[in-house]
Amino acid sequence: MYSFKSDYSEGTHPNILKALNEINFQQWEGYGEDELSLRAGQLIKKALGREDVDIHMLAGGTQTNLTAISAFLRPHQAVIAARTGHIYVHEAGSIEATGHKILIVEGKDGKVSPADIEPVLIEHCDEHMVQPKLVYISNASEIGTLYTKKELFSLSAYCRKHGLYLFMDGARLGPALAATCNDLCLADVADCADAFYIGGTKNGALFGEALVIKNDLLKEDFRFHMKQNGALPAKGASISVQFGALFENDLYDELAKQANGMALKLATGIKELGVSFLGDTETNQIFPILSNSAAEKLHELYGFLDWQPMGDDVAVRLVTSWATPEDKVKEFISDLSASI
Amino acid sequence: MYSFKSDYSEGTHPNILKALNEINFQQWEGYGEDELSLRAGQLIKKALGREDVDIHMLAGGTQTNLTAISAFLRPHQAVIAARTGHIYVHEAGSIEATGHKILIVEGKDGKVSPADIEPVLIEHCDEHMVQPKLVYISNASEIGTLYTKKELFSLSAYCRKHGLYLFMDGARLGPALAATCNDLCLADVADCADAFYIGGTKNGALFGEALVIKNDLLKEDFRFHMKQNGALPAKGASISVQFGALFENDLYDELAKQANGMALKLATGIKELGVSFLGDTETNQIFPILSNSAAEKLHELYGFLDWQPMGDDVAVRLVTSWATPEDKVKEFISDLSASI
Amino acid sequence: MYSFKSDYSEGTHPNILKALNEINFQQWEGYGEDELSLRAGQLIKKALGREDVDIHMLAGGTQTNLTAISAFLRPHQAVIAARTGHIYVHEAGSIEATGHKILIVEGKDGKVSPADIEPVLIEHCDEHMVQPKLVYISNASEIGTLYTKKELFSLSAYCRKHGLYLFMDGARLGPALAATCNDLCLADVADCADAFYIGGTKNGALFGEALVIKNDLLKEDFRFHMKQNGALPAKGASISVQFGALFENDLYDELAKQANGMALKLATGIKELGVSFLGDTETNQIFPILSNSAAEKLHELYGFLDWQPMGDDVAVRLVTSWATPEDKVKEFISDLSASI
Amino acid sequence: MYSFKSDYSEGTHPNILKALNEINFQQWEGYGEDELSLRAGQLIKKALGREDVDIHMLAGGTQTNLTAISAFLRPHQAVIAARTGHIYVHEAGSIEATGHKILIVEGKDGKVSPADIEPVLIEHCDEHMVQPKLVYISNASEIGTLYTKKELFSLSAYCRKHGLYLFMDGARLGPALAATCNDLCLADVADCADAFYIGGTKNGALFGEALVIKNDLLKEDFRFHMKQNGALPAKGASISVQFGALFENDLYDELAKQANGMALKLATGIKELGVSFLGDTETNQIFPILSNSAAEKLHELYGFLDWQPMGDDVAVRLVTSWATPEDKVKEFISDLSASI
Repeated sequence: MYSFKSDYSEGTHPNILKALNEINFQQWEGYGEDELSLRAGQLIKKALGREDVDIHMLAGGTQTNLTAISAFLRPHQAVIAARTGHIYVHEAGSIEATGHKILIVEGKDGKVSPADIEPVLIEHCDEHMVQPKLVYISNASEIGTLYTKKELFSLSAYCRKHGLYLFMDGARLGPALAATCNDLCLADVADCADAFYIGGTKNGALFGEALVIKNDLLKEDFRFHMKQNGALPAKGASISVQFGALFENDLYDELAKQANGMALKLATGIKELGVSFLGDTETNQIFPILSNSAAEKLHELYGFLDWQPMGDDVAVRLVTSWATPEDKVKEFISDLSASI
Repeated sequence: MYSFKSDYSEGTHPNILKALNEINFQQWEGYGEDELSLRAGQLIKKALGREDVDIHMLAGGTQTNLTAISAFLRPHQAVIAARTGHIYVHEAGSIEATGHKILIVEGKDGKVSPADIEPVLIEHCDEHMVQPKLVYISNASEIGTLYTKKELFSLSAYCRKHGLYLFMDGARLGPALAATCNDLCLADVADCADAFYIGGTKNGALFGEALVIKNDLLKEDFRFHMKQNGALPAKGASISVQFGALFENDLYDELAKQANGMALKLATGIKELGVSFLGDTETNQIFPILSNSAAEKLHELYGFLDWQPMGDDVAVRLVTSWATPEDKVKEFISDLSASI
Repeated sequence: MYSFKSDYSEGTHPNILKALNEINFQQWEGYGEDELSLRAGQLIKKALGREDVDIHMLAGGTQTNLTAISAFLRPHQAVIAARTGHIYVHEAGSIEATGHKILIVEGKDGKVSPADIEPVLIEHCDEHMVQPKLVYISNASEIGTLYTKKELFSLSAYCRKHGLYLFMDGARLGPALAATCNDLCLADVADCADAFYIGGTKNGALFGEALVIKNDLLKEDFRFHMKQNGALPAKGASISVQFGALFENDLYDELAKQANGMALKLATGIKELGVSFLGDTETNQIFPILSNSAAEKLHELYGFLDWQPMGDDVAVRLVTSWATPEDKVKEFISDLSASI
Repeated sequence: MYSFKSDYSEGTHPNILKALNEINFQQWEGYGEDELSLRAGQLIKKALGREDVDIHMLAGGTQTNLTAISAFLRPHQAVIAARTGHIYVHEAGSIEATGHKILIVEGKDGKVSPADIEPVLIEHCDEHMVQPKLVYISNASEIGTLYTKKELFSLSAYCRKHGLYLFMDGARLGPALAATCNDLCLADVADCADAFYIGGTKNGALFGEALVIKNDLLKEDFRFHMKQNGALPAKGASISVQFGALFENDLYDELAKQANGMALKLATGIKELGVSFLGDTETNQIFPILSNSAAEKLHELYGFLDWQPMGDDVAVRLVTSWATPEDKVKEFISDLSASI
């Protein structure tokens, strides 16, 4: 049964496997203090167009979020996030487990704007309440939407003005930047965010995320926080070699484009069947609204998530990846056509 | 300038000062293992009509909430509370600081019902999310409202059915139970809640809250949690003697009735001036809606909180206590009359 | 049965009860933002001979230690303390519960010196280990000993040189400074420590400790940390009025001298019976070594702690306070004489 | 420059790379709920000779220790460990960061015995101290020593009798069980421990540890704790497939034997040069004592750690692995011979 459940169902891109093979019998310094980590860092810095950042390799997204956020904040400080934010909903309370409250805002299309933050700052005015200090955003968002250049720069300016850190969860930063309608580049992200991570696990790596810390205040002693959170991999080189492969010859961008392209084909085919969507996305997640009966039939043939019940209908989530074969996309459309 | 800001502006009721004086030169075992603590516990058990509870004396409300809730939960478990809940809004993130997420529900009139909880339980279905385990309610609520007997028993039955602990913040339990329209008694509260506290600080004590733990699963090793949170007072007797005085001759109830009575007089007088209210309460907090100009004038004469801006008007909060003199109530009404 | 178990067995000094009575029917701002807290702060600043400190009133010693230390440190930073340190042994793991390791040193006579710290700094050289950042000392120490002026200034200089904060637990700072052989004054303590607290509970207050923060880096947002730890008392004035009484007319010093004096009488009487001691102290804790049989007999007549078993003998701890009557001291000596 | 610094300098055993290649283009359920994880679990259960255990795959050792230990304990409970214990020394305070104190015992040869624990239990008798609840041991220990069958069963019996959990850190469990003098098997470990992990990272895996939970009380909701600590890998199959390869055809044992064999050759060759050792080990870590000048010369040619300064000499640590070539062992001996 083919699965459209996620973009991390398969192993890793062949270039990465090849790179892992190539370095396998060499010896590398432990804990990310090796040549491969140095080189991966340099490649990423080149892609960002700046040298003044620290880059750390971590194993997964939740780990990266919790390690970074808890390192950046003092005990009384809180995070602002959209209600749909991954850290708020789907990380099992990991941020709160490090001691920090998440203040949620409704946002719009899964995104946070200065207008969302303003009332939170006004409300939190004394020591009986937490002190808002870090704004968490995801790009692409958890519902596949994108920040425009204007939105991100405006948000960033607002945060700086109010002494807030801006942190971007880039689990799906690849698909975001590779989207047709996107007008942001990696350098913009580095301009705007105090820290962010470039997701590997959901864009072709076997595992791994590259955390970029730009704000000097947040850099000090970060490796202590990694170690303390079990996030300083003994074989750090095994992540770095993957990012080396991803940031050589634009593979990172290429894989995301491939994933987005398949999602577009899938969405286009589904639309042509007269199906409407929960929202429009140009990344690798789409949310068609199916009748319950059609969804039921398709569940027998494909793996995918029911995202939101809507009476007799249900919005489902279909995710494509660098590894999604085009014939599976066509089959799905055909099977959907038969089940309507 | 007279203050209607809170019910903890003055010291303590004379009976309590007298009791503190009487025991002052005796020696008492430290850390609540003294005769006075034993006796206060017995008086409270008598008031509850049951012996099968553990009673602990703590210094303040936030301390009691955080010590109890963090002791009761495992790391992945979360609290359900109303958006207005004191622990969610006004305790500086103390629950999250102990590692636990608070899942908020909108509730109604500051209260939580089974219908509020149901969707939270449905949503939180796997290990990617926290596990809801404890329902936090306040009675009186943060906006002065009360749980009826029917509401509380229904909520309690729902919690038991779904394996949730029910915890009641009783910072203002006195005024709640003393309200004219209240149909709950202390024994009902003990029947319904797995644990709750009887607030002293806001009902005539110099300081102190009495935590009642009924659920046997929650009793074990509780004094370790108190000590670890800096909540095991060396001179525990100094709190116990206060609760001894409060639960002798119904002083606890009497002080709350006194506070509620003054609030009623104040509310009645204000209503007679044609002023409307944000909500009706029968406890010691009232929320009249004043014009901004009237509120401004009164701020020169009295201490009170602006609770909620409403365009040209503002809902303000006026709190009375056992110590509120009737002539101050009359003066306020008169000054309000002059400022309208 | 008379108890020499602790210096917090009785209520509070009459002057303090009197002060509590006098202010009882006045209204005070909540949470320590009142006139009495302002005044108590001024009296303490005067005693310190400096204005550049922040002063906060907290309810108890463990609470003060955990609130201060967790506020001062980042997550990966650790405390250095003597093996006998109260936070290491007798606060139920409260510091670790806030996330911080305590690195113990053997010390000498319950005290920490630069020579103790040096190897800890050498060992903790990278991110696989915690980062030592704060040195915790107690004066008087947990075994009744004192820091000399030379020792404290030397330790302070060492800490500054190595970027370590110096924090003094002053639960028994009164008896320390009032000791005959002491050569430190409050101004010296403030000179040397980045923060320290002046203990009230064990020197005549009903309850309460006054935390003094001198290092500007540690001052910011401290009230948030107090609130988050349940350590911002609603009726802050009720602690401040006590420190007002203690720091008016040198009562604080006088009570400590009284306690020390009784301990000296007790020790002298016991020594005259040929009894030896575990160590010499000039504060209000003494540690005579009794035969097990003598200790057993005295336990029937007096409360006191067995401190350290020593074969057929046992070192016991006797504590005196401002409230210890001289005739109880005499009785004890006489009863001991009879039991040898 | 060849490194004897660690057993995780190289990538992974070719069989594992092959397995990763073979499954690369298949789709796997996320978060360890896949067929490969099921199969790896079955292989490990077979090796343990029992079915009544839960098996979880995690990315690294520190992560496994902190996730397991914090899941197993309530807030006031503490760990007992040897002073040399990895969690005490080299995990950046990760256990304390989850809120739990580590009580250290001196132990002997890096090992903990009932005689070490007894005084800790006697001392920790009330709520002013933490409650010892879990005994942490490492096998092989951090200094390469082994628990004998008798020692482990005796320790286990003691723990059960006193209500303590026994947790074994098995980062180097492979080399321990493969040692010539070892008399333990995996089934014994499962018999004795309440939980333990089988280390992959240090025995041929690219990364990954397999946690085995036997005690039913510790099993519930464990995946929540994994997720909350960022330790539930999205591509769980990528770890499981490695353990599948390791536990098929005894590869796990074979790789450890290979590592131990190289260590033995190295130790024998060094001994023949008249060099003495800090302690004897039969696993893959050896600790020869070299003159400072010899060590200095060898540092120019090889990577290794100075373990313990000893005046004019220094005990160094040499670690071998499944990937250590015999000619490097010979070269080292020869170079050492030349430098003495």
